[in-house]
Amino acid sequence: VKVAELGEFGLISLLQDMISRAEDKASPARRKLIIGIGDDTAAWHGEPTIQLATVDAFIQGVHFLPDITPWHAVGWKSLAVNLSDIAAMGGRPSYALVSLALPAASEVENITELYRGMLELAGKSGVSIIGGNLSLASEVALHITVLGSVMWENLLTRSGAKAGDEIAVTGCLGAATAGYRMFAEKLTIDAESAAALKGALFYPCPRLSEGQALLARGIKAAIDVSDGLVADLGHICEMSRLGARVNVDAVPIHPAVRVAFGDRALAIALAGGEDYELVFTGSAEVIAYLKQILSTPVTVIGEMTPGEAGVKLVDREGNPFELAHRGWDHFED
Amino acid sequence: VKVAELGEFGLISLLQDMISRAEDKASPARRKLIIGIGDDTAAWHGEPTIQLATVDAFIQGVHFLPDITPWHAVGWKSLAVNLSDIAAMGGRPSYALVSLALPAASEVENITELYRGMLELAGKSGVSIIGGNLSLASEVALHITVLGSVMWENLLTRSGAKAGDEIAVTGCLGAATAGYRMFAEKLTIDAESAAALKGALFYPCPRLSEGQALLARGIKAAIDVSDGLVADLGHICEMSRLGARVNVDAVPIHPAVRVAFGDRALAIALAGGEDYELVFTGSAEVIAYLKQILSTPVTVIGEMTPGEAGVKLVDREGNPFELAHRGWDHFED
Repeated sequence: VKVAELGEFGLISLLQDMISRAEDKASPARRKLIIGIGDDTAAWHGEPTIQLATVDAFIQGVHFLPDITPWHAVGWKSLAVNLSDIAAMGGRPSYALVSLALPAASEVENITELYRGMLELAGKSGVSIIGGNLSLASEVALHITVLGSVMWENLLTRSGAKAGDEIAVTGCLGAATAGYRMFAEKLTIDAESAAALKGALFYPCPRLSEGQALLARGIKAAIDVSDGLVADLGHICEMSRLGARVNVDAVPIHPAVRVAFGDRALAIALAGGEDYELVFTGSAEVIAYLKQILSTPVTVIGEMTPGEAGVKLVDREGNPFELAHRGWDHFED
Repeated sequence: VKVAELGEFGLISLLQDMISRAEDKASPARRKLIIGIGDDTAAWHGEPTIQLATVDAFIQGVHFLPDITPWHAVGWKSLAVNLSDIAAMGGRPSYALVSLALPAASEVENITELYRGMLELAGKSGVSIIGGNLSLASEVALHITVLGSVMWENLLTRSGAKAGDEIAVTGCLGAATAGYRMFAEKLTIDAESAAALKGALFYPCPRLSEGQALLARGIKAAIDVSDGLVADLGHICEMSRLGARVNVDAVPIHPAVRVAFGDRALAIALAGGEDYELVFTGSAEVIAYLKQILSTPVTVIGEMTPGEAGVKLVDREGNPFELAHRGWDHFED
């Protein structure tokens, strides 16, 4: 069945039912909701803590290719990239508003599959989908806004780094970009590595509990790795007006990337993007403590330095390391 | 200059400067802001009142045509349609998040002109643009989320109508659709009417103060006219499980629509859409009082009826009135 046959209001009604059946009516966010989908706006009881909001786009041909990305993963990942921004502030997500543009010839089954993926992650993350919009367009595009809050009177920001802070990263890097290259370059990779890379590309797990733990333990600066480690750490440098010295030999490269890409693995881990891990800075003591309490690996990769803003890459002997492409710019060739 | 030459981060920086220079730093919403554009999320001090959120899309080729709509108006209107949803709940808007997708070959001047239009309306409405996203796409698309709040412990909803309520509408109807037809059908219309129709099409004024006044005076049900009077009043009927009887001879048709479209004017006013007036229901006494205190015209056009949900159109003698097309569906031909 095509979306054109169902009509705008038929599709709204179908998705509204899916959302209503999937949501956890006992979640803290849901219990504060007064009006969800179906009126001019959503409405809920506010609270006098710090509130967060972020928006991200997920567009066919730019962020995903229907030949490669399952529709279920389109839904999951389009929400995950937003939750990752909430995680990078140390926040808890509460509500999402989903603006979906699509061609009239879209298969309804693809759209419901997309929502199944989105609702699966929403359920795991305590997020209620409280509003949205459906519109005609020549390609499928999702623009999702996520709201959240923090319980503490502070935040993880890009500007919170101090000279002398250690730089650390959660998890390991490079797998999402390696997964993309595996498809784009039609590489033959052993089944186990291929599955790991696909998982990283299609189903990133936003580091929500890790972000909250960082904030609770006094970390002040963080960002999520969406554009690539070097590019994103560069934002911390710029906003904190500091340099960063990164030992590339310490960077935690995903094992499957090493297996499948050999010599190229390090460059992929440094500049690849879409890892949705957290890069953060703090004192050696706090980071050592976080390494103990978090089940997610935490790796120290360098330190913040006074003086010129920007990321300096060195190897374990301290020699400069050259990286050809430092990150992703949407409008460059 | 093309967007491709400036790059993603160059354009972000340019727009961030424009937003920062334009915003009223003394506005109530701005004073609660902790972090605006430039970190992973925006952050602000929350408040324990009812909070509102809505999202709408504004897409090239669907909601606007670059040959017809000035870029300044694209910016104005893309925000206005969201503010209109806040108005229809009786709310005050506070923050907007703007997700903009555009081709790399876009002219930077068109995009800055778009933001000038958006910032002009944001300034008039007390709205701070606190977040956003830029992405590549094959056509220009804006997906704007607006947040707001109400000071009262109630809301204007679609479900709040009562049998016996009068139905009233602010302002007059039909001018936006007439303006669109003027361009689409290349009609020759006198200069004064043409200017009025263009103004209505390109620069709708969300009825924010009117919505707040309705709520303050005890009105319970309202919707904004985006899809067309009959279609939108139909949503009130459906959600309130009531019928509506509308006297088509009482519908306030915009004078320029009468002049330019003669016999077609009434159908345009009933089904045209994009007027962004408020349709609301309430007791005859409250509506009579609102007519006195509001400077915007308020016209009673019918009443809510018990029984079958749906809008019944009659003329002044009570004879049924037939309307061929009742409203807008994005995915129908």
